[in-house]
Amino acid sequence: MKATIRDVARLAGVSISTVSRVMNAPETVVASKRDRVLEAIRQLQYQPNAFARGLIYKKSFTLGLLIPDIENLYYAGIIRGMQDACIKLGYSLMICNTDRDKERLLSYIDTFREKQVDGIVFASDKLHPEYYEKLVGCRIPFVMLSSHSDEYEIPSIEVDDEAAAYDAVKFLIELGHREIGMIGFGHSDSISGPPRYDGFVKAVTESGLGHNVNRVKYANHRFEDGYQAAHELFTDHPGLTAVFCVADEFAMGTISYLKDRNVLVPGQVSVIGFDNLRMASMFIPKLTTIAQPIYQLGYRAAEKLHELLSTGSVEVLREKMQHKLIVRESSREK
Amino acid sequence: MKATIRDVARLAGVSISTVSRVMNAPETVVASKRDRVLEAIRQLQYQPNAFARGLIYKKSFTLGLLIPDIENLYYAGIIRGMQDACIKLGYSLMICNTDRDKERLLSYIDTFREKQVDGIVFASDKLHPEYYEKLVGCRIPFVMLSSHSDEYEIPSIEVDDEAAAYDAVKFLIELGHREIGMIGFGHSDSISGPPRYDGFVKAVTESGLGHNVNRVKYANHRFEDGYQAAHELFTDHPGLTAVFCVADEFAMGTISYLKDRNVLVPGQVSVIGFDNLRMASMFIPKLTTIAQPIYQLGYRAAEKLHELLSTGSVEVLREKMQHKLIVRESSREK
Repeated sequence: MKATIRDVARLAGVSISTVSRVMNAPETVVASKRDRVLEAIRQLQYQPNAFARGLIYKKSFTLGLLIPDIENLYYAGIIRGMQDACIKLGYSLMICNTDRDKERLLSYIDTFREKQVDGIVFASDKLHPEYYEKLVGCRIPFVMLSSHSDEYEIPSIEVDDEAAAYDAVKFLIELGHREIGMIGFGHSDSISGPPRYDGFVKAVTESGLGHNVNRVKYANHRFEDGYQAAHELFTDHPGLTAVFCVADEFAMGTISYLKDRNVLVPGQVSVIGFDNLRMASMFIPKLTTIAQPIYQLGYRAAEKLHELLSTGSVEVLREKMQHKLIVRESSREK
Repeated sequence: MKATIRDVARLAGVSISTVSRVMNAPETVVASKRDRVLEAIRQLQYQPNAFARGLIYKKSFTLGLLIPDIENLYYAGIIRGMQDACIKLGYSLMICNTDRDKERLLSYIDTFREKQVDGIVFASDKLHPEYYEKLVGCRIPFVMLSSHSDEYEIPSIEVDDEAAAYDAVKFLIELGHREIGMIGFGHSDSISGPPRYDGFVKAVTESGLGHNVNRVKYANHRFEDGYQAAHELFTDHPGLTAVFCVADEFAMGTISYLKDRNVLVPGQVSVIGFDNLRMASMFIPKLTTIAQPIYQLGYRAAEKLHELLSTGSVEVLREKMQHKLIVRESSREK
C-alpha cells in the first residue's frame, strides 16, 4: 500500500504539519526533526501526489525554463546542466522554446502560472518591461541565465562578456594580427551584444589598433546569418587577417564563407569563436574559441533558483562564471 | 474578475457538465453546442486552474517527451515540431532527457505519473519490457517516435529505415563506387541499427557488390565515436572509396578523421550521412545525406498522441514518413 503523510509522521514521531513543513519550508524545522522526517520519507518511499501536494503546499516542485532557440546547441548544454541539478534538488523541469517571439514568451508565462511552476529560469534574452511586469504580476520568482537586468534586482548568472571578448581579441593581437574584424550580435535586442563589442574595442584601442573599431558587422543567431555577415565584412574590408566572432555558429558561418571564396583558414585568415559548442571540436578546421562553462551555467541557474525559492533571496545577486580560451586549429600566427 | 466554468455555461446556454465534456472529451458533444462553448471560452478568456482542472477532469493538458540525448541536434528539431503541435492542440510540453540511462528513464516515468501527464512520446529508444511494463502499470498512454515495437501494439511514427539506407547506398553505387563501407549503430541496443544495415546489404548484393557486406563498423551516437569507427574501418579496409554513415554525426566524424589523415572528401572518398541535421549544410564539405522530416516527425507524434488520447485509438498504428536524398558536396562520381 502506498505510504501517506500520516505514515511518515508516525514513523518520524512528529506531527503531520511538521512533515508538511519539511517538504515545503525545510529551513523552519530544526535539523534533528528534519533528518528524522527525511529518513522516514526515504524508508517509506513516500511520494505525494503532485496535484494534491500542489493544492496543499502551493508548490508543484516543477521549475520552468524559457529558452529562445532549442536548435541552438548552446541551450542543449544549458538544459543538460539544469536538468541534472533539478534531479539532485528534487524538481521536474518544464522547458519552453520561445523562438524569440514576444507573444509566445508571454503566453508561456501564462502556461507556467497555470501549471503553478515554483520558479522560472529566463535564459539569454533581454528582460523587456512587459516580461518583467508579467512575471511579477504572476508572482513567479525567477532568475536570469546568460543575461541580467540593470534596471531590476533580479538574480542572474552569466560569464563576463566584456572580459571574455577582450581575451579573444587580445589573443588574436598576440598572434601578430593587426587587421581585425568582428561579427557581433545586434545591440538593440541583445544582452551580450554591447559588452562583447566593448571588449573588442578595448583590446584593439589598448594596442594602438583603433582603426579596427568600425570593422564590425552584425548578425542574428544562426550560422547562415554569420555567413552573410562575413560576406559583408570581407566585401568592405578585404584586407582583414583575423575575425572575432561572438558565437561559434558565426565562426562556422564565416569559415564556410571563406572556404566558398577559396580563402584558407587559418592560412590566410584566423577565426576565433565564442561558446565552445560541442560542435566546435568537430568542425574543419577545429575552432579556436572562448569556452563558456555551458553545462555549469545551467546547473548553477537551477541551484540559484532553488536558493531563491527556499530562502526568499540569493547570496550573490549578479553572479559571474569563468570563461576560458581554447586554442585549436582556426587561428595561426600572422 | 476571472471567468468560471459557470459563466461559460451561462453564456453558451448549456449545462456545466457540457462545458466540462467539451474540454475533456469534445467528440462526445454535438458540433453546434461544442462551437458555442468554445466561442464562450474564447470570449470570456476562461482559463481553468491546472491543479483544480487536473483533479476534476483527471487531465493535466500536459504531454511528456522522453528523449535520449538533448545534445543531439536531431532531438532539437523533434522538440520544435512537437512543441508547435502542442501549442496548436492546447497542451504544454514537459521534456525529459534520459541520457540513455535505464534508471533515469524509469524514474522519469514516475515523474510524469506524478505530474499526471496525459500521455508520453517515447523517442528513439528500444521499448525494453521494463519500460513497457512501467508505462502500462502507470496507465499512461504513449506513442513511439523514430522507433516502434514489434511485440506490442503501440502507435509509432518513423521513416522507413531500410528503404532510406537502401537509397543512400544505391546512390553511392550509381556514382560508380564499388568499394563501400558503412558506419552503423550497434544492433543490440538500437532500433534503427538492424534495418539500416539490411538496406545496405540489400543495395550492395543487388548490384553484385556483396563483397562489401562485412565492411561495417559500429559506433555510439556521437561524432567522436564516428571518428573512432572510421579509424577502424579504414585500417581494416584502406581501399574504400565511399562510406555510408547512418547518422550525420558519424559522417562529420568520418570526414574529420579523413581530413586528419589528409584524405580528400569527396576527392578520394565520398561520404553520405543520414538525418539532415541543421549542421549538415554548414559542415565543410557540406554533407550529402538522407533527410528525415525531423520537424514533421515531432509534430506528427504530438498529433498522433492527441488522437490516441481523444479517441482511445489511432487510425494508422505504425506510420511511416518520407525520407529524401539531399545531394551536396561530400559525394562525387568515382
